[in-house]
Amino acid sequence: MALVVQKYGGSSLESAERIKRVAERIAATKRAGNDVVVAVSAMGDSTDELLDLASQVAPVPPARELDMLLTAGERISMSLVAMAIHSLGFEARSYTGSQAGVITTAVHGNARIIDVTPGRIQDALADGAICIVAGFQGVSQDSKEITTIGRGGTDTTAVALAAALKADVCEIYTDVDGVFSADPRIVRDAKHLPQITYEEMLEMAAAGAKVLHLRSVEYARRYNVPLRVRSSFNNKTGTLVTGSMEDLPVEQAIITGVAHDRSEAKVTVTAVPDHPGIAARIFRVVADAEVDIDMVVQNVSQVATGRTDITFTLPKSDGPRAVAALEKAKPEIGHSGVLYDDHVGKVSLIGAGMRSHPGVTATFCEALSTAGVNIEIISTSEIRISVICRDTQLDDAVRALHDAFELGGDEEAVVYAGSGR
Amino acid sequence: MALVVQKYGGSSLESAERIKRVAERIAATKRAGNDVVVAVSAMGDSTDELLDLASQVAPVPPARELDMLLTAGERISMSLVAMAIHSLGFEARSYTGSQAGVITTAVHGNARIIDVTPGRIQDALADGAICIVAGFQGVSQDSKEITTIGRGGTDTTAVALAAALKADVCEIYTDVDGVFSADPRIVRDAKHLPQITYEEMLEMAAAGAKVLHLRSVEYARRYNVPLRVRSSFNNKTGTLVTGSMEDLPVEQAIITGVAHDRSEAKVTVTAVPDHPGIAARIFRVVADAEVDIDMVVQNVSQVATGRTDITFTLPKSDGPRAVAALEKAKPEIGHSGVLYDDHVGKVSLIGAGMRSHPGVTATFCEALSTAGVNIEIISTSEIRISVICRDTQLDDAVRALHDAFELGGDEEAVVYAGSGR
Repeated sequence: MALVVQKYGGSSLESAERIKRVAERIAATKRAGNDVVVAVSAMGDSTDELLDLASQVAPVPPARELDMLLTAGERISMSLVAMAIHSLGFEARSYTGSQAGVITTAVHGNARIIDVTPGRIQDALADGAICIVAGFQGVSQDSKEITTIGRGGTDTTAVALAAALKADVCEIYTDVDGVFSADPRIVRDAKHLPQITYEEMLEMAAAGAKVLHLRSVEYARRYNVPLRVRSSFNNKTGTLVTGSMEDLPVEQAIITGVAHDRSEAKVTVTAVPDHPGIAARIFRVVADAEVDIDMVVQNVSQVATGRTDITFTLPKSDGPRAVAALEKAKPEIGHSGVLYDDHVGKVSLIGAGMRSHPGVTATFCEALSTAGVNIEIISTSEIRISVICRDTQLDDAVRALHDAFELGGDEEAVVYAGSGR
Repeated sequence: MALVVQKYGGSSLESAERIKRVAERIAATKRAGNDVVVAVSAMGDSTDELLDLASQVAPVPPARELDMLLTAGERISMSLVAMAIHSLGFEARSYTGSQAGVITTAVHGNARIIDVTPGRIQDALADGAICIVAGFQGVSQDSKEITTIGRGGTDTTAVALAAALKADVCEIYTDVDGVFSADPRIVRDAKHLPQITYEEMLEMAAAGAKVLHLRSVEYARRYNVPLRVRSSFNNKTGTLVTGSMEDLPVEQAIITGVAHDRSEAKVTVTAVPDHPGIAARIFRVVADAEVDIDMVVQNVSQVATGRTDITFTLPKSDGPRAVAALEKAKPEIGHSGVLYDDHVGKVSLIGAGMRSHPGVTATFCEALSTAGVNIEIISTSEIRISVICRDTQLDDAVRALHDAFELGGDEEAVVYAGSGR
């Protein structure tokens, strides 16, 4: 008998009909002889509806109360899932994050899980019950306040529960069949990946593959929780995320896949005086505006002027804030201007095997060049190469790389409506 | 500085607009120098919407999960009220029943409050914060499960908090101006009552006046919490419920008011063998069907047959269940049949002063007789006379009694849309 933790997102729970379908899947897992713990998100758009109500009563709602409000969403979905399982003849009990022992920091809206003390869950499992736990929420360690843990929170709740309960597997149910060598909506012969390592999944997620949230993969790697990403709309086995690169067989393919991201913009700070500490100053200004930056390039400075350009990428949603902060800091930094470009795309090649294959970067650049794609920024990690190009060329770039590294499968990938979440 | 507990029901909170209005009233109470604790119900029809969702996923939802689901309703309203107060410049913190220390029995759906340990509320008040508490809910003493406390629950939550915090007053906000000498929709010159005793309020509530829930008045009397019933739509002072009949001034009016009730039906068990224990047997059968009975009459038995009829009243909603149980018990009890009549109404006269005025019953019966109202059942308590009559004659009966005891005020009562809840 295995202990299985499952996670269902809002789209899998958006109506009574879908909740009943999820309940049947959970019951089938129990019927197969497993202990089952389930983390659920709020139903469909209900979180947005609650946010809308909040904005109607208060222009800037206090974060503590916003957490109190939003956690009602998972409370509703978890009790409905428990009821639906009950009506199939199984015992099911729902638990809030607090009741399930999800202990967090006290940062409302973006708390971090510190510990999970799932005593009530273990007791309920011992009684033979299926446990349904509210995702996305916890209780702060010292002040015992209700907290939420930010975007992708329910994935993280599921992984944290799986780690604390020493589950055999954590199944993340979503609306795609797992992880592919590229987005099947762009690359028709994108290959389904039956298994990848945590490191590859982390790079894929960071590079824009939306199937799993970065934070939950980091958590799974740290506690060595096997993750299975699969569709809640069929019975395919999905993708298993597990193991480290060291465990990979020798014949492992060099390259795992191609990821892309349309959510970033490019900022160039022009004619920056080239003296020590000036880059640090720029990134402090950006950080103080609470903007996370991704890629950074600095050209060698022009001898004639003693000045250089510094370019970086950031989420489009943070663009105006970053630009405003940099304009304000002009007297202090001494740059001539700030250029903002949100018509860029990022394409990345990920593969644990590329570490020992020095030709990968050359092939990568040749493939883009042949496809007529101009590289604007390039950055590499041990197992990833990413470039920024024009957004209009992004699909061509993805296809060119997928072809050049021969990542295609034998059959055409199936694309579901709304895939990619 | 006083400590004021306030209660707002679902209709006072049914939209963002109304929540903002409630927030202004709470802020005004705080601004006047009071500490304020507020118990809130779920917004408008949201409890019914959650019940509807439950019925879609499970024909008979388990009571534990139903409580988990329904308590989401108050969680939403309390956090929105706290946000709205916050945006008026006051600190406000919302607390679930569990966080507020509302300890109950473990009977899901109809738990009773055992104790209130409001440590967190007291700490927050000491910090100068306004506390918003979810009504209708608590946490069970031993199993730490989330419970709900049944109909009228938020009134009871407010009174229980007021008792535990030794509040100076518990204000119940509703959509009527307080308690009247009769329903102003029936009696045009019904008089507003500025003050009545707990006993009178209990008899009024039991006799069908819907302005306060019986249970909350019982709780207030036990802990001697002054209750003020007032409208959330104006600034009138409402009705103060306080004190016992012993404290009444000598010149107190004999009669307080006339209440009526259209929610009952009449059951007659015919030709019951008249021997000891048979009535007890009948009421055990009814009680086992979980039906509460109200009035009971047994006629003297007919000498010829040695049989008698037993008649009682009960809520219409329980009628079919009671009749079915009695039909089933026929072999054991030996009655000839069961008559069911749901075209009856109940009119009651309440007054602490009637104890010492023996003519009241005679005047009561004369007034109804003059109005052509036939009395089908009559029952009395120390401070109440109730009769059952045809439902079509109920309004005439109310007006006749109100006139006969000269209860009318000088001005016409104002009737609000939806008054009577």
